[in-house]
Amino acid sequence: MTALFVDRLWAAVREKGSPVVVGLDPRPDHLPPPFAALADSDPAAAVTAHHRTLLDVVAKHAAVVKPQAAFFEAMGPPGSIALADAIECARERGLLVILDGKRGDIGSTASAYAEAWLGKSGYPRSDALTVNPYLGEDACRPFLDVAKERGAGLFFLVKTSNPGAGLFQNHGAPPLAEKVASQVAAWGRELTGASGWSSVGAVVGATRPEELARFRELMPETPLLLPGFGFQGGKADGLGAAFNSEGLGALVSASRSILWAHEREDLAHLPDWEQQVDAALGEMVEQVRPLCGSGR
Amino acid sequence: MTALFVDRLWAAVREKGSPVVVGLDPRPDHLPPPFAALADSDPAAAVTAHHRTLLDVVAKHAAVVKPQAAFFEAMGPPGSIALADAIECARERGLLVILDGKRGDIGSTASAYAEAWLGKSGYPRSDALTVNPYLGEDACRPFLDVAKERGAGLFFLVKTSNPGAGLFQNHGAPPLAEKVASQVAAWGRELTGASGWSSVGAVVGATRPEELARFRELMPETPLLLPGFGFQGGKADGLGAAFNSEGLGALVSASRSILWAHEREDLAHLPDWEQQVDAALGEMVEQVRPLCGSGR
Repeated sequence: MTALFVDRLWAAVREKGSPVVVGLDPRPDHLPPPFAALADSDPAAAVTAHHRTLLDVVAKHAAVVKPQAAFFEAMGPPGSIALADAIECARERGLLVILDGKRGDIGSTASAYAEAWLGKSGYPRSDALTVNPYLGEDACRPFLDVAKERGAGLFFLVKTSNPGAGLFQNHGAPPLAEKVASQVAAWGRELTGASGWSSVGAVVGATRPEELARFRELMPETPLLLPGFGFQGGKADGLGAAFNSEGLGALVSASRSILWAHEREDLAHLPDWEQQVDAALGEMVEQVRPLCGSGR
Repeated sequence: MTALFVDRLWAAVREKGSPVVVGLDPRPDHLPPPFAALADSDPAAAVTAHHRTLLDVVAKHAAVVKPQAAFFEAMGPPGSIALADAIECARERGLLVILDGKRGDIGSTASAYAEAWLGKSGYPRSDALTVNPYLGEDACRPFLDVAKERGAGLFFLVKTSNPGAGLFQNHGAPPLAEKVASQVAAWGRELTGASGWSSVGAVVGATRPEELARFRELMPETPLLLPGFGFQGGKADGLGAAFNSEGLGALVSASRSILWAHEREDLAHLPDWEQQVDAALGEMVEQVRPLCGSGR
């Protein structure tokens, strides 16, 4: 029996010394120069070639990657082969994989999504999946069942990183996002690991430092996935409330600021895209370091 | 320039004389007997072979099919090829395609989902996509933009068909689902067709006849997709509030009661699975007929 997701997660974060997650948002039109020609003729093959070297660089700094299903889907069926390859290659390099699909449906359809990404399907197994909770308890239950059975993790959307997230997520009193947070905490108590943390996580935008303390209070044992660092404006200042004194409790995710490092003027002096990614990721790790083990 | 989705939709419903939608939820373990052996060795190929004949039967009765992305994903990358084939084959038979993906994300990721299914991608274009609105206005905007550009349709989840839908969808006052409904109606006014109806639709469970009048009041020009007819317990009685006097306004969707007609005892007397599907679908069309042109 594999360890629970959350125990594997914190072990990996401790080993790498960083809670940084790299989002894989493959955009053939933004690949570094060596892949541009191939991207024109066979975008999915270009993405796969890019990932194989990229993941070597990523694995030096980060414990976790987060493939974004949408960008693979936009490449059509060849994109699904590129996604399977990315998951496989990440796992070969010892990286944990959070599949960012924001899936959600009911009954046997929800089970099918959970099995597709966390269970037995034609895709290599991911370690965790992001899930949209709008459809309710019974709709989220099949995801919980599969996660339990497979030792996998889930990250339910609670408060997303976009400026307009509040339209529905702040509706009512308490705001809907707080109601979802309480429910996520309750679900989490069914999947508590040896560390006391749960394998049921929550997504809260890294762009919302002012709300983190409240969400941490509502979800004391819930790993928080904080996307939107970097390009979307999220900064390390203020993310501290998500971490405990050992530097555990949250993952900080960035995508474009790392993947497209070759487009960054401040890194243009470096000789190739691998060194640009390496520098961008090293810089992010340094920015995030004060959050970890800072005695909070 | 293609006609707006909603104008194509009502023209097709009128031509077929029925608002019935058949959900394509391919489950290799539930395929009719002729496909069982192939389903063991190559599930996606078995599904494709099944669909090609199934869609001939479906096209006799229905104007619209609704492939369910989850079940294709559960087959891994070969499932994505089977999905592309199903979309293509449906369109070749003159069927409109609503891709049931319940997708939702922010910014460029939302655009990638919209382009994947409604725009230019490796998949044949679907006519409409189901979208989860939890992430807010700015997150739904890229879907609206692509739908506008491509003459496509959207169906936002408002109130789903599962028993526990109310946990979050009824939160607050007014209930969240009503707030979402009002927003969907507002978005819809940006995509109004020649018929006065909008290409922006809403999903409301066929299991909720008691709530339909209220949602129709909040969304007077919104096509309603009513899933859950048949297997989930939805019946024609009480769905009338969703239709106007011309029999337009809503689509009634069933999946398992049609797809798995060969497993139904009441149809066991028929000689083969095609005739069983034909009978199941003919029966559903008859059940739904009173909703159309009934002078409401």
